[in-house]
Amino acid sequence: MSAGPYAARLAKVRKAADDAGLDALLLSVGADLPWLTGYKAMPLERLTMLVVPADASFQPALVVPELEAPRVVPVPEVFSVRAWGETEDPIEIVASLVRLAAGASPALAIDDKTWAVFLLALQDELPGARWSRSSALTGPLRAVKDAVELEALSRAAASADKVAAALLAGEVPLVGRAEREVAAEIGRRLLEEGHDQVGFAIVASGPNAASPHHEASSRVIERGEPVVCDFGGWLDGYCSDMTRTVFTGTPPAEFSHVYGVVAEAQAAGVEAAQVGRPCSEVDRAARSVIEDAGYGAYFVHRTGHGIGLEVHESPYMVAGNDEPVQAGHVFSVEPGIYLPGRWGVRTEDIVAATADGPVALNQASHALSALG
Amino acid sequence: MSAGPYAARLAKVRKAADDAGLDALLLSVGADLPWLTGYKAMPLERLTMLVVPADASFQPALVVPELEAPRVVPVPEVFSVRAWGETEDPIEIVASLVRLAAGASPALAIDDKTWAVFLLALQDELPGARWSRSSALTGPLRAVKDAVELEALSRAAASADKVAAALLAGEVPLVGRAEREVAAEIGRRLLEEGHDQVGFAIVASGPNAASPHHEASSRVIERGEPVVCDFGGWLDGYCSDMTRTVFTGTPPAEFSHVYGVVAEAQAAGVEAAQVGRPCSEVDRAARSVIEDAGYGAYFVHRTGHGIGLEVHESPYMVAGNDEPVQAGHVFSVEPGIYLPGRWGVRTEDIVAATADGPVALNQASHALSALG
Repeated sequence: MSAGPYAARLAKVRKAADDAGLDALLLSVGADLPWLTGYKAMPLERLTMLVVPADASFQPALVVPELEAPRVVPVPEVFSVRAWGETEDPIEIVASLVRLAAGASPALAIDDKTWAVFLLALQDELPGARWSRSSALTGPLRAVKDAVELEALSRAAASADKVAAALLAGEVPLVGRAEREVAAEIGRRLLEEGHDQVGFAIVASGPNAASPHHEASSRVIERGEPVVCDFGGWLDGYCSDMTRTVFTGTPPAEFSHVYGVVAEAQAAGVEAAQVGRPCSEVDRAARSVIEDAGYGAYFVHRTGHGIGLEVHESPYMVAGNDEPVQAGHVFSVEPGIYLPGRWGVRTEDIVAATADGPVALNQASHALSALG
Repeated sequence: MSAGPYAARLAKVRKAADDAGLDALLLSVGADLPWLTGYKAMPLERLTMLVVPADASFQPALVVPELEAPRVVPVPEVFSVRAWGETEDPIEIVASLVRLAAGASPALAIDDKTWAVFLLALQDELPGARWSRSSALTGPLRAVKDAVELEALSRAAASADKVAAALLAGEVPLVGRAEREVAAEIGRRLLEEGHDQVGFAIVASGPNAASPHHEASSRVIERGEPVVCDFGGWLDGYCSDMTRTVFTGTPPAEFSHVYGVVAEAQAAGVEAAQVGRPCSEVDRAARSVIEDAGYGAYFVHRTGHGIGLEVHESPYMVAGNDEPVQAGHVFSVEPGIYLPGRWGVRTEDIVAATADGPVALNQASHALSALG
């Protein structure tokens, strides 16, 4: 494995840590670790943790369970490996590495997704430490994708687009099948189209479509109802995430109207994603369209989230987030309208901000598909 | 949803919390929450947290993102729902519920798998609190399965057994396919045999078999090598997990010998799982067989782990764990021998401890399958 991207990222992280007055980062499950090392920790009860002293005279050390050590692809320029055996205490190992590099009262940033059980044990072992979350530091760095990452996200989006195209063309049977069966088929198709792993496949039909995070159930899809399909996964480590809503039969006028409002809101959100404007304006632009149409109370979530090694990461397109859109930001734009007990609509694309304006990575049609 | 199992479990948890001097439990992602409520939190950046005051005059409250609230199946006798909107702060909501029930200096136990970012925010918001991990309290309670849980684990094991039987019978083509393709087929078969979700499918061939937690790769399986297949998932919320090692062709004598040692160690581990004997003796029994055969240095992991709503949970079959095996404990027995750079062997069944002795829930054959 080339040290190239990892060494450059490590240098950025160390500089940012130093600027923030931090002595070390402790990275575990979550995406900071693979972003810095290429290694993804197994989310299990045996601790994996990369100790990154801000002081460049100490090399980062990856503390990893002995039985997972063979999975590590070494990048000797970036980190060393400290495998621990079944009768060792990884908390003591991490704490001693921290003390060595940063003394007894260090300022530490820990990976947001580290399990509480490990943080509590480290707090006991390092009583003088001050703690903060690593995403405050790595979030803005990871949010700006480099060329390699943009290419990977484009490939993931293109792969998901093929599944969406099949759905919109009526090639995925819906009527008479359980949501769960459709979700399984979407998952299979994602793998066939090049995904390495399926992340999720929400299939929400009829009244279930009114629940934004509905899980595919045993409900059998009927003729004459909307089906919200929101799916994604991983391709070469990077995520896809897209949503299309189709209608099984001829849609009533109310549905077509709401579908059009959501499509217009989605386009307005994308258009607002201009470099230098606040992320909150993407949300504002999409939400205004829905509010103006009288459905403001039924758009119950933010407009979008960043995407990369994680499905949800910085930057968030939400009221209150006034950080500016930057070239290299990649995020979802996914407004929806949810009529409780009745049905819902959502349209979602992944969008990259560039100096020349926003570019949608998803290209599947936004036209309403009325399926027989 | 009947309050039956949940109300009974809540009563147990409250009694244990009171005995331990705890004021409240805070449960998030992880299995304590579904075990107590039937609801599984989405592992996302929006906080879901059940606040369980030890004081029974306060009802537990499930703090949940508004857009996920429709997924909650209410159990009004057990908990109330507090949905929070996109511009509310769930940390403040949780903190105020804690203060109301337990004052400003409470003793709190937090779910082991809660993300560090939430624990840090709660520690800021509740500076007077003392913190511990919830598993210290819930682990022993959840480790003893009731009849409904035993039945669910048996069904999950029987479903996985069917996939193992197909593998052992040579119905899953191996030679000439990438490990990853075989893993995908194992996943498909788990779903066909009744699993709701695939958890993992390790397929480790040839030298990769020497890495206990190898992930299925693009390596193409050749004739004349071992293939370790370790797979499982969820069925009705409960986990399966089993391992079989097969050989593509006629195994050399050394392989057959090592395979036999592992099989003997596995049987010895199961036999040692008698109610009242320490969990560590299960490890000791399996490990002794491998040590006596001269391969002690190559068995680099513990012998087993409890299983239930989580793939890995209490009790752990490892040196140093002297808690006694109890009727209702369900766990893996999975010794292995790993010859670095060469190959490896592992055999794993799920076993339930009963008053009448250990019962293997997996029934697929342990005989060495030499596949053409």
